[in-house]
Amino acid sequence: MSSNDTLARLAQVIESRRGGDPNKSYVARLFSKGGDAILKKVGEEATETVMAGKEGDRQKIVYEVADLWFHSMLLLAQFGLKPADVLAELERREGMSGLEEFAARKLQKRESEGT
Amino acid sequence: MSSNDTLARLAQVIESRRGGDPNKSYVARLFSKGGDAILKKVGEEATETVMAGKEGDRQKIVYEVADLWFHSMLLLAQFGLKPADVLAELERREGMSGLEEFAARKLQKRESEGT
Amino acid sequence: MSSNDTLARLAQVIESRRGGDPNKSYVARLFSKGGDAILKKVGEEATETVMAGKEGDRQKIVYEVADLWFHSMLLLAQFGLKPADVLAELERREGMSGLEEFAARKLQKRESEGT
Amino acid sequence: MSSNDTLARLAQVIESRRGGDPNKSYVARLFSKGGDAILKKVGEEATETVMAGKEGDRQKIVYEVADLWFHSMLLLAQFGLKPADVLAELERREGMSGLEEFAARKLQKRESEGT
Repeated sequence: MSSNDTLARLAQVIESRRGGDPNKSYVARLFSKGGDAILKKVGEEATETVMAGKEGDRQKIVYEVADLWFHSMLLLAQFGLKPADVLAELERREGMSGLEEFAARKLQKRESEGT
Repeated sequence: MSSNDTLARLAQVIESRRGGDPNKSYVARLFSKGGDAILKKVGEEATETVMAGKEGDRQKIVYEVADLWFHSMLLLAQFGLKPADVLAELERREGMSGLEEFAARKLQKRESEGT
Repeated sequence: MSSNDTLARLAQVIESRRGGDPNKSYVARLFSKGGDAILKKVGEEATETVMAGKEGDRQKIVYEVADLWFHSMLLLAQFGLKPADVLAELERREGMSGLEEFAARKLQKRESEGT
Repeated sequence: MSSNDTLARLAQVIESRRGGDPNKSYVARLFSKGGDAILKKVGEEATETVMAGKEGDRQKIVYEVADLWFHSMLLLAQFGLKPADVLAELERREGMSGLEEFAARKLQKRESEGT
């Protein structure tokens, strides 16, 4: 791991906390409540990110996206996944078509959905 | 390559696309629609992440979190922000209290909100 | 059914459409795609409602809440439920404690969740 | 009593509570926190509705949709709007084309968005 690998290091911290004392650790507390608690937080933080975006408050946007990514990482941890898995997926898409796979995929999805 | 580098490179690709031809690039198309289109996508991808979490489908979770992070990065780009800003915020929290600031902050928020 | 029972009548219209031709009916099309398509729409319309609320645009708020309620009704229909079931739940809460059950319930939930 | 009447009465109860003691009333407390608190709740309840839909738990779906509609009504009240405004919008759509306006509108939206 590179010394500047923030997400990998954060994932290790999450891992070290998840079995801890729910009274002392936010991470341990969320895990002790079960998966739905983490998913609710992902939904909440996404709403707050959208609200920050509407306000156009740059500091708040950074703050809320950090919250959103952090809680996404708890979801990953819950299923034995790592940020590296998400980054590999992003790399894979970029490698295939320089992000343009997104466009193709989304268009196909829309057409197949017929909406 | 570290996660920081992956995200930084992805941000560069996004930057190089955002002014491009909306007919050829998904990124250019979303930017051409304006900020609301990006925020709607953040909301949509968060919903799909929650659904993947309920299904417990690991591959889908990776895929949807990648979508969620990618569209968060479009939001960052829209406001002249970089993934490094979010990583710095995550580092800052970790540095202050090994993530436990999250707990303190959330508890304070709850108490001040009185819910 | 009262002549002014908008939701009950709308539920009947939905019911009459859900088995129709997906190429001719939006309702039929969403149902033909399966339950996830309806849930995604609930998430999307909620995001758009939040965005309209941030804008403070009264007409848009009415429009987006109508979209949100409409897609909630598709979810109800999917599970053989009716708007009357939701209204009965709202009546029940009001009857028990004049809405204050909400407060008590939310507080209990928070305390039991320990957040 | 029609659904229109139930929602109208609930709106009256909300109106009578919103200026009350935040320590005694959930409605008063949410209003005292300002509009963002209500919007966050709309986002939260939508996420919980989606989760209930994935579980396929009919009782939970009724419960969460009730929560979602209730908090939508707080949003309406915040902007001086009434459930009747939303019902009129739903009636208007039904009247125009028996719900099929939804399809046309959504398709047009998609096409104009080019996604």
